[in-house]
Amino acid sequence: MPELRRDPIVPRWVVFSPERARRPQHLKSLEAEDGEELCPFCEGREENTPAEILAYRADATTPNASGWRVRVVPNKFPALKVEEPLSRRGEGIYDWVAGVGAHEVIIECPHHETRAARLGTQQLQDVLWAYRDRIVDLKRDARLRHVIVFKNQGALAGATLEHAHSQLIAAPVALPEVQIEIEGATRYYQQHERCVFCDIVHEEQQTQRRLIAESNHFVAVAPYAARFPFETWILPRQHASHFEELSHQSVQDLAQMMHRILVLLDDALDEPALNYVIHTAPFEPAALPQYHWHIEILPRIAGVAGFELGAGCFINPVYPEKATAFLRDRRLRAVAHVP
Amino acid sequence: MPELRRDPIVPRWVVFSPERARRPQHLKSLEAEDGEELCPFCEGREENTPAEILAYRADATTPNASGWRVRVVPNKFPALKVEEPLSRRGEGIYDWVAGVGAHEVIIECPHHETRAARLGTQQLQDVLWAYRDRIVDLKRDARLRHVIVFKNQGALAGATLEHAHSQLIAAPVALPEVQIEIEGATRYYQQHERCVFCDIVHEEQQTQRRLIAESNHFVAVAPYAARFPFETWILPRQHASHFEELSHQSVQDLAQMMHRILVLLDDALDEPALNYVIHTAPFEPAALPQYHWHIEILPRIAGVAGFELGAGCFINPVYPEKATAFLRDRRLRAVAHVP
Repeated sequence: MPELRRDPIVPRWVVFSPERARRPQHLKSLEAEDGEELCPFCEGREENTPAEILAYRADATTPNASGWRVRVVPNKFPALKVEEPLSRRGEGIYDWVAGVGAHEVIIECPHHETRAARLGTQQLQDVLWAYRDRIVDLKRDARLRHVIVFKNQGALAGATLEHAHSQLIAAPVALPEVQIEIEGATRYYQQHERCVFCDIVHEEQQTQRRLIAESNHFVAVAPYAARFPFETWILPRQHASHFEELSHQSVQDLAQMMHRILVLLDDALDEPALNYVIHTAPFEPAALPQYHWHIEILPRIAGVAGFELGAGCFINPVYPEKATAFLRDRRLRAVAHVP
Repeated sequence: MPELRRDPIVPRWVVFSPERARRPQHLKSLEAEDGEELCPFCEGREENTPAEILAYRADATTPNASGWRVRVVPNKFPALKVEEPLSRRGEGIYDWVAGVGAHEVIIECPHHETRAARLGTQQLQDVLWAYRDRIVDLKRDARLRHVIVFKNQGALAGATLEHAHSQLIAAPVALPEVQIEIEGATRYYQQHERCVFCDIVHEEQQTQRRLIAESNHFVAVAPYAARFPFETWILPRQHASHFEELSHQSVQDLAQMMHRILVLLDDALDEPALNYVIHTAPFEPAALPQYHWHIEILPRIAGVAGFELGAGCFINPVYPEKATAFLRDRRLRAVAHVP
C-alpha cells in the first residue's frame, strides 16, 4: 500500500510505493526497453495495458480495442492508488498520509511515435483535451486536492517506454513545487496587487529579450532564471489559475504553440530528452488571483548533480537570452523555407 | 562573467556560467572520460590543474608537485569566480547578483582511486580537515555568505572525472535548499523550542527503526521521508549549526562513520553512483539554535524525472525502514566475518 510522508524539515512530500520497484529498469542501459515489436501502447495491443479510463475513438469502436486517437489508462505501477481510503496519522514526530490518488498514463497516439514534436497539432489537441477531461473528472473525488500532468521523453528524462505518452498524478495533498510557487506568488501579490506571472508575460512582451513565440492566447518565453539550457515556459496571456478552465479556442492555439516549441527544441538540440509539466493551482479555491497556470518544458541535456540536489541551485551554462535568439533564428529560417 | 539570477516566483537562485559549457561532455556516453592514463588529478600531473589553494603534504615537498595527501585547487570551469567584484542590480522586474564566489575541487587522494569507500579513514580525515580549513578561510571573505560541500561520484551523479574528488561552492547568497531547511527548522523551533534535527536524532535512537549506525559523536539514519532509495544522513548527536566548528576528536569519529556508511552502500548497491552534500548554516550568525549541520548521502539508482522536477515530490520504491534493516544485516554479517 503506497503512502505519503511529509518531510519533517522542508515542505516536501515523498511517495513510498514499493510497486514502483517492479518497473522495468532502464537506467543502466539508458535505452528504452520497448521497440515497436513489443510496445504495449501501440494500437492493437490494448490488452497489454490496464482497462482504459478514457479514450477518444471512432464511432462504433469498442473500449480497449482499436480505433482510438488518444487513450488514458491507469499506470501499471502506480505511485498512488485510487482504491485506498484516505487516512492521516502521526508516526512519532512524523506525518503520514495514505497513498490515495490517481496515477494515469495518457497514450498520445495509436501508432509507434516516440517524439511529441512529430504529433500533428490535431493530435496534440486531443492530448490536451484528455488532460482537461481527466482533471475535471478527478476533481469530483473529494479526497483529492491537486493534480500534475507531466511528460518524460527519453531515458535521461526518466522514460521507461518510448511510445509518446504523458502521465498525471492526482494527490490528497497540494504538490510542493506548485505550493511553493503559490507562496512566492502570494508574497508578490501582497506587495504589488498583481500576479507575478502576468508581470512576467508583460515584461517579456515589452523587452522581447526572452520571448520565443507568441500567439493569440499564449506566449512562450525562456524564463529569466531558467534552470536548464533551453528551458521554455508557455503561459496564457490572460490570467487564469486553473489549466482545466481553458476554452475550446485556446486549446487549438495551445496545441499549435506546443507543436511549434517542441519542433524548435527537437531541431535545435537534436531531439533531446525532455520533461514537460503543467503547473496548475490545487482544486480549491476555484480561482486564485495571484497564480497563473503554465507549462514548463525542460530539456534534459544537463544532469542533476550534488550541487543542484544539495543547494537547490542550478548551474546553467546557457543564458536564456542566447537560447531565445538561437530559437528565434531557427524559426525564422524554418519559416523562410516554407514555399 | 558568471551571474546569479533569483527566480522571480520561488526562492531559488540559478548560476549562469557560460564557461561551464566548455566542460568535457559525459552525458551521452555515461562513461567518465578519463582513465588512469589521462587523469589530471593523479599525483605527478599537478601541472594539469590550476595552482593549488591548499595541500596536506610531506615535509620538504613543494606546492604543485608530488608528495601530497589531499589537494585543493580551483575548479577549471568555475560556476562562480572569486575575482568578480560584488554587485547587485535589478533587471526589469528581476534580481541579479554578480557571480562572485569560489568553486574549488578537493582531490581526495594522490593515487587513482575512483570510490570514496576505498579511501582509508586516515585519508577521509584529511579530506574532512580540508573541507573545514577551506570553509574557515572562505568565511573571511566578507562578500561570501554561505558554502556547500558536495561530491558527485559516478556519471549518473554528475561526475565528469572518476578520480575521487569533491567540490565546494561558496556564494554571495544563502543557498536555497539550506535556507528552506532553516525556515522549516525555525517554524519547528518557534512551536517546540527544540531543534527539529535534535528531535530526529532522539526519535531515531529511541525507535531504532531507521538507525543505521551510531558512534560517540554521530548517528547515521535513513530519513523518514527519504527521497532516494538508501538515502542516508549523518548527523552530529550534539547540536551544532556549523560544520566547520567540529572538533579534532569528532573529525576522527566522522571519518570512521563516513567510511562505514560508504562501504555499506557500495556493498549493498554494487558501487552506485552517489552524491553527498554537507548542509551547514550560512556564515552569519555564528550559531543557530534551530539548525543542525549534517551530511546527506544520496545514492542515485533512481532518476529525477518530470514528477520530481515538476511537483517537487519524490517517488521512492524503498521504505527507509527496509533499507535500514538491509544495511544493518549486511553490517552484522561483515562484522561476523572479522577474524
